[in-house]
Amino acid sequence: MADEKIDIAIVGGGVSGVYSAWRLQQANPKQKIVVFEASDHIGGRLLSVTPPGIPDMVAELGGMRILPEVQPLIGTLLKVLNKALPENEQITTYPFPVDQPQNIAYLRGTYLRLSDFTSNPDKVPYRLGFPNHGQTAGSIMINAIEQIVPGITNKKLSEEQRREMAQQASFAGKPLYQQGFWNVLMRVINGESYQYSMDAGGYDSTLSNWNAADAIPWYLSDFGADSVYEGFTKGFQQVPQVLAKFFTDAGGEVRINSSVSALQSVDGAVEFQVNGRSVRANSLILAMPRRSLDLLADSSPILQEINGLIASVTPRPLFKLFTTYTSPWWRAAGYTEPDGTVVPVQAGRSVTDIPVRQTYYWPKSNGAPVKTGPAMLLASYDDGDNTGFWDGLRPQRHKYKSKGQQVAKVDEPFVAENRKHNPELTWDQYQAPYRMVTEVARQLGTMHGLSYTPKVQDACFRDWGDDPFGGGWNSWNIGVKSWEVKQKIIQPFSQQHLYICGEAYSDAQGWVEGALQTADMMLAKFGLERLKKP
Amino acid sequence: MADEKIDIAIVGGGVSGVYSAWRLQQANPKQKIVVFEASDHIGGRLLSVTPPGIPDMVAELGGMRILPEVQPLIGTLLKVLNKALPENEQITTYPFPVDQPQNIAYLRGTYLRLSDFTSNPDKVPYRLGFPNHGQTAGSIMINAIEQIVPGITNKKLSEEQRREMAQQASFAGKPLYQQGFWNVLMRVINGESYQYSMDAGGYDSTLSNWNAADAIPWYLSDFGADSVYEGFTKGFQQVPQVLAKFFTDAGGEVRINSSVSALQSVDGAVEFQVNGRSVRANSLILAMPRRSLDLLADSSPILQEINGLIASVTPRPLFKLFTTYTSPWWRAAGYTEPDGTVVPVQAGRSVTDIPVRQTYYWPKSNGAPVKTGPAMLLASYDDGDNTGFWDGLRPQRHKYKSKGQQVAKVDEPFVAENRKHNPELTWDQYQAPYRMVTEVARQLGTMHGLSYTPKVQDACFRDWGDDPFGGGWNSWNIGVKSWEVKQKIIQPFSQQHLYICGEAYSDAQGWVEGALQTADMMLAKFGLERLKKP
Repeated sequence: MADEKIDIAIVGGGVSGVYSAWRLQQANPKQKIVVFEASDHIGGRLLSVTPPGIPDMVAELGGMRILPEVQPLIGTLLKVLNKALPENEQITTYPFPVDQPQNIAYLRGTYLRLSDFTSNPDKVPYRLGFPNHGQTAGSIMINAIEQIVPGITNKKLSEEQRREMAQQASFAGKPLYQQGFWNVLMRVINGESYQYSMDAGGYDSTLSNWNAADAIPWYLSDFGADSVYEGFTKGFQQVPQVLAKFFTDAGGEVRINSSVSALQSVDGAVEFQVNGRSVRANSLILAMPRRSLDLLADSSPILQEINGLIASVTPRPLFKLFTTYTSPWWRAAGYTEPDGTVVPVQAGRSVTDIPVRQTYYWPKSNGAPVKTGPAMLLASYDDGDNTGFWDGLRPQRHKYKSKGQQVAKVDEPFVAENRKHNPELTWDQYQAPYRMVTEVARQLGTMHGLSYTPKVQDACFRDWGDDPFGGGWNSWNIGVKSWEVKQKIIQPFSQQHLYICGEAYSDAQGWVEGALQTADMMLAKFGLERLKKP
Repeated sequence: MADEKIDIAIVGGGVSGVYSAWRLQQANPKQKIVVFEASDHIGGRLLSVTPPGIPDMVAELGGMRILPEVQPLIGTLLKVLNKALPENEQITTYPFPVDQPQNIAYLRGTYLRLSDFTSNPDKVPYRLGFPNHGQTAGSIMINAIEQIVPGITNKKLSEEQRREMAQQASFAGKPLYQQGFWNVLMRVINGESYQYSMDAGGYDSTLSNWNAADAIPWYLSDFGADSVYEGFTKGFQQVPQVLAKFFTDAGGEVRINSSVSALQSVDGAVEFQVNGRSVRANSLILAMPRRSLDLLADSSPILQEINGLIASVTPRPLFKLFTTYTSPWWRAAGYTEPDGTVVPVQAGRSVTDIPVRQTYYWPKSNGAPVKTGPAMLLASYDDGDNTGFWDGLRPQRHKYKSKGQQVAKVDEPFVAENRKHNPELTWDQYQAPYRMVTEVARQLGTMHGLSYTPKVQDACFRDWGDDPFGGGWNSWNIGVKSWEVKQKIIQPFSQQHLYICGEAYSDAQGWVEGALQTADMMLAKFGLERLKKP
């Protein structure tokens, strides 16, 4: 006999979990619905932290933006939430700054400005050849994709139409979904164009060898030439926090510090263990990414039966290190025009092929660049191989497991000089290792061509490769028919009220949009329709 | 009650297993000693295969060479074995050809000859800066290492002295063993010099972020400027085969197709399952690399207790693809000197940064290059990231497990035109995927600047990243005191007759020398001394 019986249990307090909980509680006000979250807070891979002494900024240690034009679900959700929220609690967004022409690309030991990619192609140290010489990384990729799936870059196509084209496409006589993105790219562009696209693009994992039929429409959505991003004034974590509040207001219950294990099917219901007690749920929703499912499967034979579905994606490490300064020193890395106009480096991103990879000149909460006074960088936004470099400067991953900690304890943390460490402060719960901060600072100096290393005031760090996340995003494996797995994994056993949702098994992997997409598919099994615009 | 009782069980029929078995049986002729090998043959990661139609060559799908000057154990072993072997069964070696100055380095889309590294430095497309401009990858690394541990590159030091220096060294105020090789290298050379060392060096994983205190002496042994290699006339696999024969001649028993599971300690002995029967051994030796131990640990709680030791190394994927041709077309990639002397490309290795990475112009069994007629390439010798490229062109790794197969079934194998597939032939048991062979052929054409793609006759492929090996070699993790783990893992429980040995936990990881080193350490627990030169 279970110690407790509930109607619907939801495991995972990320966006897909709390969104599903809220929708289900609204539709079934009398049911007992509980969200179980292993950590001490709601949000999953959305984690918004205020830097000490810089109240008009929010460090987004996790997800940081949306693409309104191609992401209708999050747009509608925000409208619905805002309609129900009081004036002073509205969720507002700002235009997230994109790359500026004066920003830096420090590639192969050569200092370029982003504008050099097209205006000064002979300076670009890659033998791109015809017709890629003089092109940006983005346009090389789009041309390459057009060669792989002719017609797919037509701007008149919808996202759905692009996905269908890619699913049905063949390349070199073989279905595209059976091929790797890297493999097909190397057939249409040379090794140098591929390397340039990766180096100048800023990401390693997006161009890695994942399922080409998924990678192509994904790339076109995310990095298409016209992408317009929006950031969140109070931080993206506000969204799951509001969802959790609406859920509890409607009668639901959120239990943090509640790690679930030993899932089993009993008489048509699902039983599991939480903090030494057994719980029986009529329906169970696992709103988790692959690595969390793998960890839960260790104690849950029922999940081992669907390992083929769970293992159809690969978690991709990704981390963020924020650093703060007394002033925005990077502005001086700009230049002065012949007429005396000063063009500072101040917004968007610079890139390099050394391990620091991507640096964002972080905006204020209204999207404006900092001109004087305290300022912040997303000093390193890093994925793929380069995470291996930083692994040597941080606690070993297996140290995570200690009780009551959100992240592994850092033995030699970076300590701010001008203030006392405050364990109550969220920022201070994600301490960065001292050696990592000094190495990032050194590389930032190199990348910006400085003769000195700007003094870091404060630092904050999150590596989403750590358990239980395993990665910042997940990518479909080669050979998988994602459009079938995506449907199947929602309810893997037809006779069981066991459901799985989240970003990992969606068409918009790595995006909140993907979490909402699969949550909506799952909610349809409960008879719920998509949210309508208010 | 166990179905069978034996004195000493040895799990794993690689070099360390059969060497230990032979030594123990010699010392204890009356004991019942059994080697259990999961596959259908002896040799582990030594796998020597004769290419169809080229009887004077041996494709080394696994280990291919030794470094006699710094590897005394294998040298002594060969002498001892040869003394006992009849004249016509002697194990003989030949000088394994090293890089020739006329060989190709196709890097960053630029065609170089290896000689250009020093004689034509302005052509080398890396901004190496002073003092690395004009240096080879090897000498840049040696200079970098000397900066990290001053004095360690002194040629008068023994291997042992170098290891001790590195173990005791600190760099930038922190013990070297707590730092990553990539991390410390980036402090003494720029990003371009690091990238050049990796690209021109041919390997990704050796310069990755493993334990700097182990990586440095390891690198100096293996890639020191004066390294002289030897290959095996009849293939390196002859060594474990002879050892297994001597072992059985002395009364021992080898059981192939015998996969061991469910290890447990019972009354001071060790019990385990093999092919549905239970065996009790007074002593048990696990002569296996990390990944095999991990797999065995799944059903063996006793091994889970020492996960900290087992997990102190990381398996590194590595694969080899051999291709054969009707003639050595690569000779034409050489040049003609002004006086009319033809300098062909014929021996040693060429390198590139595209995924094919390293190509060896394979020698005849006497070490001589092929001048006309049937010829063979080690077309791609690949590790690290680039294995991800080839993963998209081969069966998925999890498919390995099907019964009775050594490797995953290849759905679309490359089929030789001029002969019938013969499943009895070892070569044909390691079929290469058709798409992998065509892509390697395409890249070989690019790398050699050809306007055509030479026609492949036959192909053979082995990926040591597959289970149960997990990698071609293993590297010590950052933060591990390898010199302590190395001693401890030999007999992890002081009261248990359970032993672990093999390349993975040695000072010469990836080399047979490392397998023999740890086997000797383990045999000392049985009171056996090192082999003496006959």
